[in-house]
Amino acid sequence: MGMSRDFDLITFGEVMLRLSPRGYERLSSCEVFDKRAGGSELNVAAGAALLGVRTGIITKLPENDLGKYIKNEIRFEGVSDDYLIYDKTSDARLGVYYYEAGAAPRKPSIVYDRKGSSFTSIRLDEIPEDVYGKTRMFHTSGISLALCKETRDTAVELIRRFKKAGALISFDCNYRANLWSEEEARKTILSILPYVDVLFVSEETSRRMMQRTGELRSIMKEYTMEFPIQYVCTTQRTVISPKQHDFTSVIYSSKDDTYYTEEPYKAIDVVDRIGSGDAYVAGALYGLLRYGDARKALEYGNATSSTKNTIPGDLPQSDLREIDRIIRGHKNGSTSELNR
Amino acid sequence: MGMSRDFDLITFGEVMLRLSPRGYERLSSCEVFDKRAGGSELNVAAGAALLGVRTGIITKLPENDLGKYIKNEIRFEGVSDDYLIYDKTSDARLGVYYYEAGAAPRKPSIVYDRKGSSFTSIRLDEIPEDVYGKTRMFHTSGISLALCKETRDTAVELIRRFKKAGALISFDCNYRANLWSEEEARKTILSILPYVDVLFVSEETSRRMMQRTGELRSIMKEYTMEFPIQYVCTTQRTVISPKQHDFTSVIYSSKDDTYYTEEPYKAIDVVDRIGSGDAYVAGALYGLLRYGDARKALEYGNATSSTKNTIPGDLPQSDLREIDRIIRGHKNGSTSELNR
Amino acid sequence: MGMSRDFDLITFGEVMLRLSPRGYERLSSCEVFDKRAGGSELNVAAGAALLGVRTGIITKLPENDLGKYIKNEIRFEGVSDDYLIYDKTSDARLGVYYYEAGAAPRKPSIVYDRKGSSFTSIRLDEIPEDVYGKTRMFHTSGISLALCKETRDTAVELIRRFKKAGALISFDCNYRANLWSEEEARKTILSILPYVDVLFVSEETSRRMMQRTGELRSIMKEYTMEFPIQYVCTTQRTVISPKQHDFTSVIYSSKDDTYYTEEPYKAIDVVDRIGSGDAYVAGALYGLLRYGDARKALEYGNATSSTKNTIPGDLPQSDLREIDRIIRGHKNGSTSELNR
Amino acid sequence: MGMSRDFDLITFGEVMLRLSPRGYERLSSCEVFDKRAGGSELNVAAGAALLGVRTGIITKLPENDLGKYIKNEIRFEGVSDDYLIYDKTSDARLGVYYYEAGAAPRKPSIVYDRKGSSFTSIRLDEIPEDVYGKTRMFHTSGISLALCKETRDTAVELIRRFKKAGALISFDCNYRANLWSEEEARKTILSILPYVDVLFVSEETSRRMMQRTGELRSIMKEYTMEFPIQYVCTTQRTVISPKQHDFTSVIYSSKDDTYYTEEPYKAIDVVDRIGSGDAYVAGALYGLLRYGDARKALEYGNATSSTKNTIPGDLPQSDLREIDRIIRGHKNGSTSELNR
Amino acid sequence: MGMSRDFDLITFGEVMLRLSPRGYERLSSCEVFDKRAGGSELNVAAGAALLGVRTGIITKLPENDLGKYIKNEIRFEGVSDDYLIYDKTSDARLGVYYYEAGAAPRKPSIVYDRKGSSFTSIRLDEIPEDVYGKTRMFHTSGISLALCKETRDTAVELIRRFKKAGALISFDCNYRANLWSEEEARKTILSILPYVDVLFVSEETSRRMMQRTGELRSIMKEYTMEFPIQYVCTTQRTVISPKQHDFTSVIYSSKDDTYYTEEPYKAIDVVDRIGSGDAYVAGALYGLLRYGDARKALEYGNATSSTKNTIPGDLPQSDLREIDRIIRGHKNGSTSELNR
Amino acid sequence: MGMSRDFDLITFGEVMLRLSPRGYERLSSCEVFDKRAGGSELNVAAGAALLGVRTGIITKLPENDLGKYIKNEIRFEGVSDDYLIYDKTSDARLGVYYYEAGAAPRKPSIVYDRKGSSFTSIRLDEIPEDVYGKTRMFHTSGISLALCKETRDTAVELIRRFKKAGALISFDCNYRANLWSEEEARKTILSILPYVDVLFVSEETSRRMMQRTGELRSIMKEYTMEFPIQYVCTTQRTVISPKQHDFTSVIYSSKDDTYYTEEPYKAIDVVDRIGSGDAYVAGALYGLLRYGDARKALEYGNATSSTKNTIPGDLPQSDLREIDRIIRGHKNGSTSELNR
Repeated sequence: MGMSRDFDLITFGEVMLRLSPRGYERLSSCEVFDKRAGGSELNVAAGAALLGVRTGIITKLPENDLGKYIKNEIRFEGVSDDYLIYDKTSDARLGVYYYEAGAAPRKPSIVYDRKGSSFTSIRLDEIPEDVYGKTRMFHTSGISLALCKETRDTAVELIRRFKKAGALISFDCNYRANLWSEEEARKTILSILPYVDVLFVSEETSRRMMQRTGELRSIMKEYTMEFPIQYVCTTQRTVISPKQHDFTSVIYSSKDDTYYTEEPYKAIDVVDRIGSGDAYVAGALYGLLRYGDARKALEYGNATSSTKNTIPGDLPQSDLREIDRIIRGHKNGSTSELNR
Repeated sequence: MGMSRDFDLITFGEVMLRLSPRGYERLSSCEVFDKRAGGSELNVAAGAALLGVRTGIITKLPENDLGKYIKNEIRFEGVSDDYLIYDKTSDARLGVYYYEAGAAPRKPSIVYDRKGSSFTSIRLDEIPEDVYGKTRMFHTSGISLALCKETRDTAVELIRRFKKAGALISFDCNYRANLWSEEEARKTILSILPYVDVLFVSEETSRRMMQRTGELRSIMKEYTMEFPIQYVCTTQRTVISPKQHDFTSVIYSSKDDTYYTEEPYKAIDVVDRIGSGDAYVAGALYGLLRYGDARKALEYGNATSSTKNTIPGDLPQSDLREIDRIIRGHKNGSTSELNR
Repeated sequence: MGMSRDFDLITFGEVMLRLSPRGYERLSSCEVFDKRAGGSELNVAAGAALLGVRTGIITKLPENDLGKYIKNEIRFEGVSDDYLIYDKTSDARLGVYYYEAGAAPRKPSIVYDRKGSSFTSIRLDEIPEDVYGKTRMFHTSGISLALCKETRDTAVELIRRFKKAGALISFDCNYRANLWSEEEARKTILSILPYVDVLFVSEETSRRMMQRTGELRSIMKEYTMEFPIQYVCTTQRTVISPKQHDFTSVIYSSKDDTYYTEEPYKAIDVVDRIGSGDAYVAGALYGLLRYGDARKALEYGNATSSTKNTIPGDLPQSDLREIDRIIRGHKNGSTSELNR
Repeated sequence: MGMSRDFDLITFGEVMLRLSPRGYERLSSCEVFDKRAGGSELNVAAGAALLGVRTGIITKLPENDLGKYIKNEIRFEGVSDDYLIYDKTSDARLGVYYYEAGAAPRKPSIVYDRKGSSFTSIRLDEIPEDVYGKTRMFHTSGISLALCKETRDTAVELIRRFKKAGALISFDCNYRANLWSEEEARKTILSILPYVDVLFVSEETSRRMMQRTGELRSIMKEYTMEFPIQYVCTTQRTVISPKQHDFTSVIYSSKDDTYYTEEPYKAIDVVDRIGSGDAYVAGALYGLLRYGDARKALEYGNATSSTKNTIPGDLPQSDLREIDRIIRGHKNGSTSELNR
Repeated sequence: MGMSRDFDLITFGEVMLRLSPRGYERLSSCEVFDKRAGGSELNVAAGAALLGVRTGIITKLPENDLGKYIKNEIRFEGVSDDYLIYDKTSDARLGVYYYEAGAAPRKPSIVYDRKGSSFTSIRLDEIPEDVYGKTRMFHTSGISLALCKETRDTAVELIRRFKKAGALISFDCNYRANLWSEEEARKTILSILPYVDVLFVSEETSRRMMQRTGELRSIMKEYTMEFPIQYVCTTQRTVISPKQHDFTSVIYSSKDDTYYTEEPYKAIDVVDRIGSGDAYVAGALYGLLRYGDARKALEYGNATSSTKNTIPGDLPQSDLREIDRIIRGHKNGSTSELNR
Repeated sequence: MGMSRDFDLITFGEVMLRLSPRGYERLSSCEVFDKRAGGSELNVAAGAALLGVRTGIITKLPENDLGKYIKNEIRFEGVSDDYLIYDKTSDARLGVYYYEAGAAPRKPSIVYDRKGSSFTSIRLDEIPEDVYGKTRMFHTSGISLALCKETRDTAVELIRRFKKAGALISFDCNYRANLWSEEEARKTILSILPYVDVLFVSEETSRRMMQRTGELRSIMKEYTMEFPIQYVCTTQRTVISPKQHDFTSVIYSSKDDTYYTEEPYKAIDVVDRIGSGDAYVAGALYGLLRYGDARKALEYGNATSSTKNTIPGDLPQSDLREIDRIIRGHKNGSTSELNR
């Protein structure tokens, strides 16, 4: 899938500072925050980079010590920092979100403080012209469309330009009710679907925000009939408790008119659920970029997402060797209890 | 329930320093202690304060840096420090208890070091005369009766004076075999039941220490027939493992001769079980003080207790917004997996 | 000084979340933030409360878990939460600042992220009318004037109303070049000096922003000749290294036309310099409120400020017993090396 | 079982530095390592010492700060440091292993860095001649045979000399495929079985490395028919998830031709699985050394192993009082939820 | 000095739990305590053990997890646990002290909570009869005399019995005004000086509590003229700031009527001052036990005490190799800046 | 200085895992290690990268989780991972060193465990042929020559090939007596000096290992007369205490036959001295690569080295903005005490 270029995957989105109490401590009383980087499109780029995909991210950071921290983390994750833009204005700020883990019957919770972040001031003319021809695939999500007018306009235009330059377009709906209305989201997303090759959309989002009805499989196929979409991917998470989930997904491939599925990963020990959807995207795109194969996309996506749940922080940390071992374990049943 | 006063609830009891190893480390080898405040009657006052009840505590603290720490924590929790008494003698000391978490098949364990604490020297004449008319309700527990003669005499006389001044009396049996004998406990508690309006007593305590027989519901009703008690509350905890409990309760209301119950909270992720009984009292008293309604008492008590299990430390940390959300989730089933 | 009221001191100002790396770790690479509360006017209220002054703060906080944290810390510090206002809008946010310690030749550094915080939306009509008659003294600083038009208008009007209601007015210039220009600052401050009883101003601010010339003592006296100011307080810090300072101050009292001074505290071990200026204000106001005596103000201010430098975080933690011991040690030379 | 001597049990084996990330953090990104001591034969000696057995260990450590740390830990655990040998060469090094916890579907993993450690240079003539007559029992494991020629020769000769001096010989196969081949292991182990009194061997090792076939019970008995072995012990672990195991064992006693078994410990909360096999050996040997009774060996072994799973680190931390309480709980069902 | 025995040095004294905030955090607000063991006579035994002296301690501990922790630490330090006595009563408790570091102008401070500890119930008949003949030297301090009548009687009788059995007696006045009056101390100490061979006494204690006058050297010599004391050791500490001290000492040897002195250690970086006096005793006794030489005693005492100031906790951690290196550096000036 | 290429600076050397106790804790008793990456030539590359130089490193890492960690840190630091070589053999290991901070009179100390690390197996044919033409400058140090024959041969041949390909050669003698003898070092270094353009050598190394005599300035100039060296750089550190140093340097430039010097940085607060020599190299090379100017080299080298002392870990963390600010402060005297 795709041709030879400098990058396999370039993503576009906001990177935030994530602050969380340790263990089960709470935002309103904890004494210490674990400090991490996070953001849907960085999570995708980092997850794919860990599997061997050459990735970069287009984002905008404040030119201060916090922006420098994010840049360092992006590099630590193996993602290129070639397309980072720095905000040197006195209003420059890094968006922050506060995340607190849950324990039944108490759910995890998030407080966002991202309004007016440097990313929301990004403009197309800040992005180097030469980026469009450099990558086999471009990915962004509904969050970048939702944040504000500037990011929406930029994201839509990026999709157009990358498409025009021959890149495949991947899009994750990632609908967030606290960022925009269902109507606004639907309208905007419908306007970009003509450019999309790989679509990630949850069943709930298809039904509520996208107002689709009928069986899940029909809904998935419909997208490819209305738009020139090649793959529609829908994850299926069963929340047993905040600390235990089951996970699998369905991928519909229009080329061979086939629905790909596999047995769910059962009884996942959920250490940190945030970013597991993005890890799915990373794994699935790896399958498509490396093998051009929906079954591989399914297997890698299910494995990377399941495994991400066991990792603290937004960002995945599993390389190809680990994911391959987990896929083997999932298929064959485990033979050992410890990797020595 | 009750009239308008400065406080809704004043409690009486010892506040201790609680020291515990991190995670699953052990008292005999850990290098660091997490330092917290705890004590049954403070836990009740703090839990109620979080829900919006105006609470205070009568206790006695050493006038040193540790006493100051406890005072600060009491205020941090939203409880009034108006009725703190300071021990300025050279024998002043803060009681300590050491708590170690369990993991099946190893149970949690506690080492107490509270003998001769400043609280055990509290005398009635140290307590300001004007406190009796200031609150709608007074609460204490069997621990205050058990510690020593001074605290017993003070507690009994406080019950009498608050009752006389028109406050409702809440009492939690909270029987601790390491503090007094069953016979001594029974005799003392029987002597105060004539003053009690709201009684908290576990089934095991009713049967063993209080020597009641027959069905639980009959036992609960009997208390209200022998004494002018309005509500008898009995919690029902099922210990699946040190890390997983189910929880519900029964409240018998003598006024309408009704037993209130609801479906248990299932598969609670137990992070720290200490203080969950006190959190129940806090929630139930909130239901009575705010709504004068046994069903509300039941729902709030079950929710505050279940949720406390997920919080490190003795003290609850859930405000009304969180508890209301958890009650809704319990009644309707959860609709989302994350509070954004 | 002043009459009998519910409060001795009410302050007005922003409270922020302060995040700092541990030890000498850096913002751009640390893994963990120590989480604290801070803000000039809270620091003053907390420092005074520790000495026994009844204090409160007027401020505005987001109604989320972070606002709740700040409220709890305000109470922990012994400051009243009676005048906290909550921002329930979806734009509600808590200002944040990031602080990194220095080590010669590297200076400490701060990154502010306070734009658009809930405090900046505070309006006079949100503040209860009855507050004006409740306190003997009101204090605010140049930061509250500088943040934005809303806070400036509110601060100026508060000064007028408290003055009218008979409270003494304390004002700390606290000029911050990153918040406003010297001209804007000078003009605004000149407009409020007619209301001020106690003025805190550094020599550098007097000379640069206030454009005064001549000897320091003349400058200090001039303020009291141009305006009905009773006391002018100017601190004198000598920075030997980021980890070692000397400190003293001068107070000019117009009533007896006297300059009060004392020997500097030498070789202070600077653990955390932030908030030591506010601690000075707290100590000096304590001297005035309790004794109405400029010498006491000087001695308490110098001691509280010197001691604050040894405490991590913005907020002082020294009670009257400790400060009195330090004053004695400063006057007499130490006799012991350890407080047992 | 055995006669009166200075020691009840002396073991021989390598002690390593164990470094592990906290919680679920990962080797490739964590910032901090928890530092502990570990090694199969030390784990056995320490576990037995906790139960009251007088134990020592023969090992070789670098004469540097890390060797000193290990010596201190050996003493902390209650094991004698009489037979520690120090490597003063410039090549002296302490073996290290890195351990990362798992969470389903991700398994725990270990990176070894023990090549060329000081222990691998141990020679028989470094060990004091008088040790052989000082103990009732000697224990070592297949790891000591596998590490290198020096340790193998030394271990084999130690077995012979202790046997000759009248000590009982305990041996744990502990087969590690990353250290030696099945063939080499089988050949070496067969050569020492004529000296062994107590044999620990897993079912999988019996079948694969030892090439036994048939029912487990027959396999166990066969060892005692081919060699003068008194007891064969085989543990039975069921891995439900990385965080939950069931555990029991079978002991075959040739003297009374009996298979001892008991109900498994169910739903063990696995905090740290490493060393639970060694803890089993410690408990079983305690049963034999103290009571000479295979049922006691079974009960103590099952209890110490199950409990070890709940303890962070390689080394057990449960004394006799705790283990006896757990055995009572296992037999009778728990009566309380907390040890007060 | 002394004959061949099992032990070189046995000490008698209380061991406590020491709890301290991290860094410059404070008792009244810190969240975490570092947990350590401490006590003057354990500090002496541990310091001497590190230098190669065979040491033990006679003390009494509660038979609970905290007593077990102290036992483990005693062993970790290389001190024998042969003479530990366990308190199995329900009143058993471990004494605690809370220590907070200082920073100029704020001094370090300590809160004791040791009343009624298990040690205060120690009786002579609990101590094995055979201990008296087992050691070359016995050491205790004024703290053991001061705690209560039981410990005083026991300490005095131990001094008599060890002396009678041929051991040398070492005694450190260690006067603590918060434990007993000067008069009581003087009377008691005078009653034991006839048994003492090595006396540690500060100049201040000689002058105030012991009511000696004149030059320090005359005072020191007088002790040996009034009593059959061989060595009088007086430390000389200059407190530049809580974080910087100078240190040296004088030893008077009656045998050769000589005062031994050396240049002070200058500009010691004081990390934790507690226990540095005990470390001095350890070093000096090592010099006497190993070399019978007052100059060696002086050099080792000065080095161990100076170095202890740089170590967190009460207990020294410097072995002979390190102390020898520090003595060489002190004598010759340093030649390198780093030990590689 | 130099022509346009992909990289400005490529270095060659070993990267190790650095483990150190927190604060003043000790290797022999600490519970936790801070985990960092370090190694002289990485430190140089990272320091230069922070200033804006495009750098890479040639090194060899084990293909395991620890090698992955080092790779991530290399990227985090802004250094290219293009020339990392992975050791896939079963003997692969990462060198480790343990570092403990000092406090007067106790020096910092290091325990090395680097024998047989993957780096010591590096061979020239593993390094891509195309690297030689890609950089303007190549740097290595005496450590790479000293480790073993493989690394020496590789380093010498790299110097030759880079030189031949037109790169400038920078070499830091960095003599370590624990790695090789003075004679071996001298002989080897003399053999490469004909290729060197920039030489870093301390005065002590010049005198002892290199056996030079006379005044320092003459010694420096002699090197350039015997070999075609352009710049000789010698640092001058004055160790006041483990926590306070003064620092400056001399650079001799043969082109203009000039010695460049400046006033020392005084009273540097030494947080972590390791790597400050490498930071000097980084700063000096930046001055040469960016400006081709010895004065700039001197100023940047002195500033980066002084500042590195204030940073925990081997690796510098100061970017150009910070270093420029520190140079200004050094030249002009500070004007503010805090960077806001």
